[in-house]
Amino acid sequence: MTVIALSGGVGGAKLALGLSRILPPDELLVVCNTGDDFEHLGLSISPDIDTVAYTLAGVANPELGWGRGDETWSFMETLGTLGGETWFRLGDRDLAVHIERTRRLRAGETLSAVTAGVCKRLGVAPRVLPMSDDPVRTRVRTDEGWIDFQEYFVRRRCEPVVHELAFHGAATARMQPDFQAALADRQLKAVVICPSNPFISIEPILAVPGVREALAACPAPVVAVSPLIGGRAIKGPTAKMMAELGMKPSAGGVARRYGELIDAYVCDFADMDQVAGIDAKVTLGQTMMKTLADREALARTVLGAARVLRR
Amino acid sequence: MTVIALSGGVGGAKLALGLSRILPPDELLVVCNTGDDFEHLGLSISPDIDTVAYTLAGVANPELGWGRGDETWSFMETLGTLGGETWFRLGDRDLAVHIERTRRLRAGETLSAVTAGVCKRLGVAPRVLPMSDDPVRTRVRTDEGWIDFQEYFVRRRCEPVVHELAFHGAATARMQPDFQAALADRQLKAVVICPSNPFISIEPILAVPGVREALAACPAPVVAVSPLIGGRAIKGPTAKMMAELGMKPSAGGVARRYGELIDAYVCDFADMDQVAGIDAKVTLGQTMMKTLADREALARTVLGAARVLRR
Repeated sequence: MTVIALSGGVGGAKLALGLSRILPPDELLVVCNTGDDFEHLGLSISPDIDTVAYTLAGVANPELGWGRGDETWSFMETLGTLGGETWFRLGDRDLAVHIERTRRLRAGETLSAVTAGVCKRLGVAPRVLPMSDDPVRTRVRTDEGWIDFQEYFVRRRCEPVVHELAFHGAATARMQPDFQAALADRQLKAVVICPSNPFISIEPILAVPGVREALAACPAPVVAVSPLIGGRAIKGPTAKMMAELGMKPSAGGVARRYGELIDAYVCDFADMDQVAGIDAKVTLGQTMMKTLADREALARTVLGAARVLRR
Repeated sequence: MTVIALSGGVGGAKLALGLSRILPPDELLVVCNTGDDFEHLGLSISPDIDTVAYTLAGVANPELGWGRGDETWSFMETLGTLGGETWFRLGDRDLAVHIERTRRLRAGETLSAVTAGVCKRLGVAPRVLPMSDDPVRTRVRTDEGWIDFQEYFVRRRCEPVVHELAFHGAATARMQPDFQAALADRQLKAVVICPSNPFISIEPILAVPGVREALAACPAPVVAVSPLIGGRAIKGPTAKMMAELGMKPSAGGVARRYGELIDAYVCDFADMDQVAGIDAKVTLGQTMMKTLADREALARTVLGAARVLRR
């Protein structure tokens, strides 16, 4: 394993796809946030793992940023007519993954094993891992008190003002063993923090005991990619959340949030002025990933930024 | 409540539909076998309740005899590509009922309450009840030993030779209270044993403690409808199973199996010679139900057979 990518959902998945297209499959490990996993309708749902897996498999829905492109919606439509809960949209094909995952987890398999099985069947070549096989659940303190992450993120569309985040279960969660081993591997060339929301996608991973220490001690440079361009997120509540948490929503603000954790920082040409004075080695590039070529180009930029720093 | 219909799946549901079209909704109670209920893919599935509910709602699949006519199959197709179990076919819309039922049962609702909720949403006017809110599970002793009912019925397509049936849980199951009350109601006009498989659809109902006694004591005649015509079942393994259990597969054989339980017996004109000498009052009619008019006509024949016997 030579490159580890830490990823949340859509933005992270795009860069992971770029990396998967320029690296041999056995040289990329994508470690996914599981803080926004939850149990819903009796099912174990892992949104970030699925977004990454679907994106790498080429079946992701490019418009929605979640779910599959080849989806049908009979289940959800009928559930609505039955008076069931429809605020979290589950497509008919997507549902097969949740049913299968739930069944295997109940039978005692780890989330890693289930994820590996699903990825293999989807034809995903690089390894995709949860940050931990133990449950971690992000909760959000808002003006209305603490609420579960998906309640905040999907049901309330990120409208409540965020004051604080907590990662329940993180303190006792164990790093996924292959993730831990890969971080200590002398062959490791780079750790990439994908352009995901720092607070809800990356910090849950960092909250697992040992991850921050392993990143500090690992033989390879840690390169983060800014999720903001011109102070705005491409998708999701990163900028809004930063402002609510008392930070300036900017590429520089994200870099400062990561602080000493990162050795290099890739941000958009547009944000050149925002990153003056940060500790990490800055690389400017085009971070907007509209096309497949954009994803590959950003992946090359990121690996290039790591190469010049290799210790 | 003036008519109670005891029903299994497709044949019973057809007659229940006929009854529902000639009786006011509050004068019909359909009590369904739950012996073929099972847990599959983490879901609580009640095939006979659903077949009856879908049939009464007008959404049943007329070709398959199970599931819905307006169905799509994305879930099952995708589950197959994931290596999941696909021998029990679950359509995308059908799945919504199973997910909703499973969720509500886990939340502590009774199967009766869940069934009432689903039927209301489907627009089913007559009441549909499980025979019991306690789980009863039919098992089949075959040449290969005891196997679960759906394993026998769906996965093995009724191929194994049947030697014995058992209804696990029946001995401690309680009659559904409204079923029990309806059987004791002085207004009861008839109990109809629908043309369902006696061994796997009706006898699980009869195995619930108190049902046989309540039928014997009830103020109304019990009228059974033969599931066989000319020694053959319209659908399902009734005739095969009778032969394997050492009985002659005939309309008369079914009547003798019910014995003193029934006061009247409706069988097809074709089987006139088969029912000589049975104890119940025989009414001949057309029992094949191809059209909606056939279902209504058979319902009238059955209610007529009850009327002449009313005690």
